[in-house]
Amino acid sequence: MQIAVLGFGTVGSGVVELIDRNRKTITGTVPEEIHVKYILDIREFPGNPYEDRIVHDYDIILNDPEIRIICETMGGKEPARTFTEKALQRGISVCTSNKELVAAFGPQLMATAKENHCSYLFEAAVGGGIPIIRPMNTSLTPEYITDIAGILNGTTNYIMTRMERENVSFEDALKQAQENGYAERDPSADVDGHDACRKIAILSSLMCGKTVRYEDIPCEGIRRITTADMAYARKMGMAVKLLGRSRRSEDGSSFYVRTAPFLVPADHPLHSVEDVFNAVFVHGTMVDNLMFYGRGAGKFPTASAVVSDVMEEARTLGTTIPCTWSSAETMQLSDPSQECFRHFVRVSGKDEDAVRNVFGDVTFVTAEGAPENETAFITAEMTEKCFEDAAARCAGVIGTVRLL
Amino acid sequence: MQIAVLGFGTVGSGVVELIDRNRKTITGTVPEEIHVKYILDIREFPGNPYEDRIVHDYDIILNDPEIRIICETMGGKEPARTFTEKALQRGISVCTSNKELVAAFGPQLMATAKENHCSYLFEAAVGGGIPIIRPMNTSLTPEYITDIAGILNGTTNYIMTRMERENVSFEDALKQAQENGYAERDPSADVDGHDACRKIAILSSLMCGKTVRYEDIPCEGIRRITTADMAYARKMGMAVKLLGRSRRSEDGSSFYVRTAPFLVPADHPLHSVEDVFNAVFVHGTMVDNLMFYGRGAGKFPTASAVVSDVMEEARTLGTTIPCTWSSAETMQLSDPSQECFRHFVRVSGKDEDAVRNVFGDVTFVTAEGAPENETAFITAEMTEKCFEDAAARCAGVIGTVRLL
Repeated sequence: MQIAVLGFGTVGSGVVELIDRNRKTITGTVPEEIHVKYILDIREFPGNPYEDRIVHDYDIILNDPEIRIICETMGGKEPARTFTEKALQRGISVCTSNKELVAAFGPQLMATAKENHCSYLFEAAVGGGIPIIRPMNTSLTPEYITDIAGILNGTTNYIMTRMERENVSFEDALKQAQENGYAERDPSADVDGHDACRKIAILSSLMCGKTVRYEDIPCEGIRRITTADMAYARKMGMAVKLLGRSRRSEDGSSFYVRTAPFLVPADHPLHSVEDVFNAVFVHGTMVDNLMFYGRGAGKFPTASAVVSDVMEEARTLGTTIPCTWSSAETMQLSDPSQECFRHFVRVSGKDEDAVRNVFGDVTFVTAEGAPENETAFITAEMTEKCFEDAAARCAGVIGTVRLL
Repeated sequence: MQIAVLGFGTVGSGVVELIDRNRKTITGTVPEEIHVKYILDIREFPGNPYEDRIVHDYDIILNDPEIRIICETMGGKEPARTFTEKALQRGISVCTSNKELVAAFGPQLMATAKENHCSYLFEAAVGGGIPIIRPMNTSLTPEYITDIAGILNGTTNYIMTRMERENVSFEDALKQAQENGYAERDPSADVDGHDACRKIAILSSLMCGKTVRYEDIPCEGIRRITTADMAYARKMGMAVKLLGRSRRSEDGSSFYVRTAPFLVPADHPLHSVEDVFNAVFVHGTMVDNLMFYGRGAGKFPTASAVVSDVMEEARTLGTTIPCTWSSAETMQLSDPSQECFRHFVRVSGKDEDAVRNVFGDVTFVTAEGAPENETAFITAEMTEKCFEDAAARCAGVIGTVRLL
C-alpha cells in the first residue's frame, strides 16, 4: 500500500517516522504493509533519511496509480484545498490534520470523496492525538448530543495553568510558553481563541450535521484574564479554562456555540485538565457525560491521529467512511445575546447594595490576594442581553468571566 | 432493518427504549430504519408497551430471515454462548454487553463471525457507555500501547468516594451503595475485584492481540481499605482507586496484568474520577497519555454502547468488523512477583529504624486522624517478591497499598 505525505513539517515528518517506527504494530491490522512513497515539499532535505522520497511536483504523486492514500499535513487553505480535491477526484483517499481547511470546506470535500468512492478523514484536525472525530461518527451515533465543551487549545491551557500555579501574569506566562515552544512568536491564533474556535466549529458541525461557520461563533480569548481572577477562582474551587462550547436545548429549538474563557467548577471533569493537555466533554441524553482526554498537539500525538485515519482508509478502500456532518448547508445559530449564563464579576468599590441594585440577587466572593477596594460576586443565571445591560448600568466593571 | 434483543432486563429494555426515543437521530446515520422485532425472555411482561414483541422460543428469531442483527443482553455464559454461536453461524451479526462471555470466549465467537461474514461486537462489555473498545480497534491501531489503567467498576469507585469524602467505613459505604442501588445484595463480584478483572482481561487482550485469561490475573478487592488509608492518601494528595492495570516494557519482554487498589497521585488524570464514573487511561508510545471517561454502568449509558454496535453492524452488513484481539491463544503473563511498585505501608509501633532496616530507604508519612502508635511510609520501587520478603520480616504490618 503506497501512500504520499504532503508537507514535511512537524506533523508530516511525524507521520513518516511513526509509520517506520511502529511498522510491526501497524502491519498487523491493515490488509497490506503501508509504505510512504513520496513526500511533497518545496524544500530540499539534504542528509535527511527520507531525502530520496522528497518530490516538488504534485503531479508525480497524482499520476502514480500506486498511490491510494494521501496525508495532507500542509495546513492552510491553498494549495491544500486544490491538492485534496484533485486526489479525491481520482478516488485517492485523503486524511488531514488541517483544521482550517476542514472548518472551511469539510462537507464539500467529503461530498467529492463520496462521489469518487473514497474517504476524507480529519481525526487530527481537532484535539491532536485524542480520538474524538471517529467516536463522534461511530460510538455516539445513537446519541442526541446536547452539550460539547472542549479545552481545544494547549497553548492557552498551558498559559492559564502557569498563571494559576505560579501566580504569574498573562504576559509572563505567555513568555514561558514561547520559551518552551508551546506558543508562536505571534500568539494571537491561540490566545485570541481563533484556533479553539475553528475546532469547536468542526465539533459543532459533527453534532448538528450541518456546517457551523466559525465566523458565526462569538469568540473571546484569554488576554484579559488576570492573576486576580485566578485567585478568586481558586478560592471558589474553580479553574479558568478557554472553552469551545456548543449546546442545544433538548427540543432542538436553540443551538448556541461560543469560544470564551469559563470558570469550571471542581466537580466537572474538565476542571483537572492542565498544562498542554486537551479534553472534550460530551453530554448525550442517553450516555450522559463523557470526556476524551489527551495531547492536543505535538508531532507524534498528531501524527498518531493521522496514521489512524490512513489505516482506516487502508481497511476500507473503495468505500466512503460516513460522517455525521453531511451537509454544506449553514447551521443557523441561535442569537448569542439570548444564551443564559451565571457570570463572575469584579467591580471597583465596596458598595454591595449598588451591586444588588443593578445585578439583582448575587453571591459575593472574597479571596486572599485579590486587589483591595473591589467587590466580586457571581450573578444568578441570566441572558447575555440582561447581563450586558446590567454591566452597562454599573460603574467600574473590572472584569467578568462566565461560569460553565 | 429488523433486529432482536435477547434478555429484557435493565440493558435489554434500555436498548429497546433508546431505539424508539432516539429514532430520528439514529435513522440519519444507518442505511435503513432499525426496528426491534423480537425480544427473547423467559418471563411475560403483561402491560408492557413492548409486550407484543416478547417471544420465549429462540428458534422463532433464528428462523426469521428478516433478522440481521441480535443484541445479546442476557449476561452469563449459557445459554448466551450457544445463542450467539447459532446466530453467527447463520451470518447474523451479534453485539453484546456480556463481559463474562466475551472474556471467556471472545476470540472463538469472533472467528465464527468472520467465517460467516458477520460481526461480533462488545463495546458495552467494558466501561458501560464509554467508547473504549472501538477506539482501541480503530483510533489506536497505529500505537504500541504500553500501559492501560482503568477504573472499571462503578460500585467500588462509589464506595471509595464515600469513604474518602465522608470518612465512613467500608461497611457503611457499602451499605449506602446498596441502598442507592449501586451495589448488589451479594457485592462480592464488585468489591472483590472480579468484575474489574474480567474487564481488564478484555482490554489486555485487545492490547496484546492474544487472550489474557482473567483466571491468570492477580486480583485483589477493596475490603481491606480503611478510613485510615484514606486519611494518609488525602494527606499525600492521592486517592485510592480500584484499578485494572496492564503494562508492558517497551521491548515487549514483559507483560503484567493486575487488579488491585492503587494510590493514584493528584496529577494523574484518573485521580479525579469519582462516584460511579469509570475511566480508562491508555499510554501509547506515540500518542502519549489518553483517558476515556464516562458512566461505566446504568441502563441507558450501557444501552447506548450496545446500540452504537448495532448501528455499526447495520452499516457494514456482509462484512466482518476487525478486532485487534484476533487470537484465542493464551497470552503468557510475566511472573507477577517480578513486577515493580512503590508501596504505601502502615506498621504498628513507632520504630523508624526498624522500618529502615527491613524496607531500606523509605519516605515516612503522617496524617491527621491516623491511628496513634503506627508508622506509615512509602517504599522505593521494588519487585513484589522483594516487598513480600521484607513485609514477612517486619512485625506488625497493618496494611499496604501499591502506588500507581
